[in-house]
Amino acid sequence: MAVYTDVTDHAVAEFLTAYDVGEPVSLKGIAEGVENSNFLLVTDRAPYILTLYEARVQERDLPFFLGLMEHLATRGIHCPQPVRGRDGVALRRLAGRPAVLVTFLQGLWPRELEVFHCAELGAGLADLHRAGSDFAMTRANDLSLPGWRPLLEASLPRADSVQPGLGAALSAELDFLEANWPGGLPTGTIHADLFPDNAFFLDGKMTGVIDFYFACTDMLAYDLAVCLNSWCFSAPDRLEAERSAALLKAYSQHRPLSAAELEALPILCRGSALRFTLTRLYDWLNRRENALVVPKNPLDFFGRMTVHQGIASVRDYGWTA
Amino acid sequence: MAVYTDVTDHAVAEFLTAYDVGEPVSLKGIAEGVENSNFLLVTDRAPYILTLYEARVQERDLPFFLGLMEHLATRGIHCPQPVRGRDGVALRRLAGRPAVLVTFLQGLWPRELEVFHCAELGAGLADLHRAGSDFAMTRANDLSLPGWRPLLEASLPRADSVQPGLGAALSAELDFLEANWPGGLPTGTIHADLFPDNAFFLDGKMTGVIDFYFACTDMLAYDLAVCLNSWCFSAPDRLEAERSAALLKAYSQHRPLSAAELEALPILCRGSALRFTLTRLYDWLNRRENALVVPKNPLDFFGRMTVHQGIASVRDYGWTA
Repeated sequence: MAVYTDVTDHAVAEFLTAYDVGEPVSLKGIAEGVENSNFLLVTDRAPYILTLYEARVQERDLPFFLGLMEHLATRGIHCPQPVRGRDGVALRRLAGRPAVLVTFLQGLWPRELEVFHCAELGAGLADLHRAGSDFAMTRANDLSLPGWRPLLEASLPRADSVQPGLGAALSAELDFLEANWPGGLPTGTIHADLFPDNAFFLDGKMTGVIDFYFACTDMLAYDLAVCLNSWCFSAPDRLEAERSAALLKAYSQHRPLSAAELEALPILCRGSALRFTLTRLYDWLNRRENALVVPKNPLDFFGRMTVHQGIASVRDYGWTA
Repeated sequence: MAVYTDVTDHAVAEFLTAYDVGEPVSLKGIAEGVENSNFLLVTDRAPYILTLYEARVQERDLPFFLGLMEHLATRGIHCPQPVRGRDGVALRRLAGRPAVLVTFLQGLWPRELEVFHCAELGAGLADLHRAGSDFAMTRANDLSLPGWRPLLEASLPRADSVQPGLGAALSAELDFLEANWPGGLPTGTIHADLFPDNAFFLDGKMTGVIDFYFACTDMLAYDLAVCLNSWCFSAPDRLEAERSAALLKAYSQHRPLSAAELEALPILCRGSALRFTLTRLYDWLNRRENALVVPKNPLDFFGRMTVHQGIASVRDYGWTA
C-alpha cells in the first residue's frame, strides 16, 4: 500500500501538457506496490498509471526497465507501455521524482491461488524469457548471491529478536549457498519479482505482467524459483506440489528446461527464499515508526527456505518428465 | 491510505452476479479514505467504487448514508450513487463486511488550495444543505458536543505526552464550549467531514462531493465551521482570511446566513477544531504498531483551535456584509 509522494492537481496538469493523452478527470493513489508511488490517472480518453519512482529505485536503471517493457511488447508480451510525450521522451520528473506514465493493463491479480493459475504463470514466464532473450540491455541482479552477505551482516546483530536462532540459520544457509551456487545455467532477462500481485488474469487466462522494477540479467531458472516460492505455497511451511508441478510442466512446454536447470532448481529455490527473507528482515528491523508501508514478515520466506532444505530433487516439486 | 480488508477475485465475481454492471476487468485498492476499504472496480462497461465498511462505521447507519446519497442526487447534487442489484438491494456483504458498489465520480481533489476553491466549496456546501433540507431520515451527530467529554477523558492521562500542557488546554476548552455551545440555530443534514480530499474539481469548478460516512443531523453552520478549519488554513496556526471570506460569501449567496449563525461561527469553529483534535489524539495515543494507516497529527487542529480562541467576531474571517 503505497503513495509516498503526493502530487498536486496543478503539477499533474502541467506534467500532462507534454503528452497527447487528453485532460485529467480523476487521480487516485493506488494502495498496491511497495517501492514506488502509483496513481490511477484517468483522462477524458483513457486510464493510465502514473508512477513516481522513490529512493529505492536507482534512476540510472530506469532506461533498462522502460526499454524492457517496450521490447517485450514488440514480442507480444502484455505489459504496461511507457507513454512518450510529444518530444518522444517517456521519462520525466514530477514532484521532484523521476516519473513515467504507462498504459493501463486490464486484469485482476489472483488473491486465491489455484493450480490453473500456476500453469498459466509457467507458460507466461517461459514466453517472457523467450521474448526477453534478444533484449540488448543488461542489468546485474544486485539482489542475487553477492548482495546477500552485506544484507545478512546488516541484520545479524538483531536477527534473533525476530526469532531465536534465526541469525545462525541464515548464516549457515548463506555459507552453503556461497559454496554451492550453480553456474553455467542459461541466463537472460528475468522479472525477478513475479509475485501473484504482479500478474493479471481474466477469465482464467493470464492477461499480463506488471512491475518490472527488479528485472535484471540472471539465470532464467532463478526466475522460476522466485515464482515457485511466491505461487506454490499455501503457508510458509506448506508446499503445494500440485501447483509447482503445473508451474514447471507448463514452463517446460514453452521453454524446455535442461537437466542442469532441473537439478539446480532446489538450490535456486533456497537462494530465492533466502533473498526475500533477507530483504524483509532488513526492512523489518529498520522500519520507521511512521512508515507508510507495513513491513512483511521475514519468517514467511524463512519457512519456505526450510522446506527447500529438505527437498531431495526436483521430483519433490511434482516434476515427472 | 487504506485497504483493511482485501477481497478475492472469486468473491468479487460472485458479488457482481447480483448486479447488471458487466464483467470485472480490473480491481485496485485505493490509497485514500481512512475509515473503509475502497477499491476501484472497472467492469467492461464502466468504472465503479467498491466500498467495504470497516468496524468504525455502524452498520445500522448505512441506510441513512445510502439514502442520503440517493436523495441528494434527485436534488441535483453530484455525489456517488449506490448501485442496486437486480433485486433492488444496494447494501450487501462481501468478505464478511457490509459492502456497496457506488458510481464513479469524475474530478480531482484539490491538493493545493486557492481562494477560488473555497468560493466553489461555499456555494456547493450551501447547495448541499438546501438539497438535504427535505431528507426524511435523521442521524444524531455522535461526534458533537456530548461525544467530546468521553473522548477527552479517554486521552487525558497521556495527552501531555504529545505536548506538555495539552490535556489542561483541551479540558479548559471543553469546559468553555459546554458552557457556551450555541442552540437554536438552523439544523439539517450536514456532511460533517467535507475536507479537501472529499471534494472533486474539474476546470476550476467543484464537480462533486464524496464520503458521506460522517453525515448527520446538526447545525448547518457547524458544517461551515468544519470547512473553514479544513480549507482555510495554510498551517495549523495560520488562517487565510481571504479563503474564509470567499467561503462565507459564496455560502451566504446560496443560503443566507442569519445574524445568530454569524455570531456563533467562531465558537462553532472552536468546537470543530476541538472535535478533530480529540479524535486524532485518541487515534494517535491508541495506534497499533502494525496499523495500516498513519495517524494524523492531533496538533494540526489544536493549532486552529488556538487561532479561533483569539477571534473577536466573524469579521476576523473576512466577513464583510
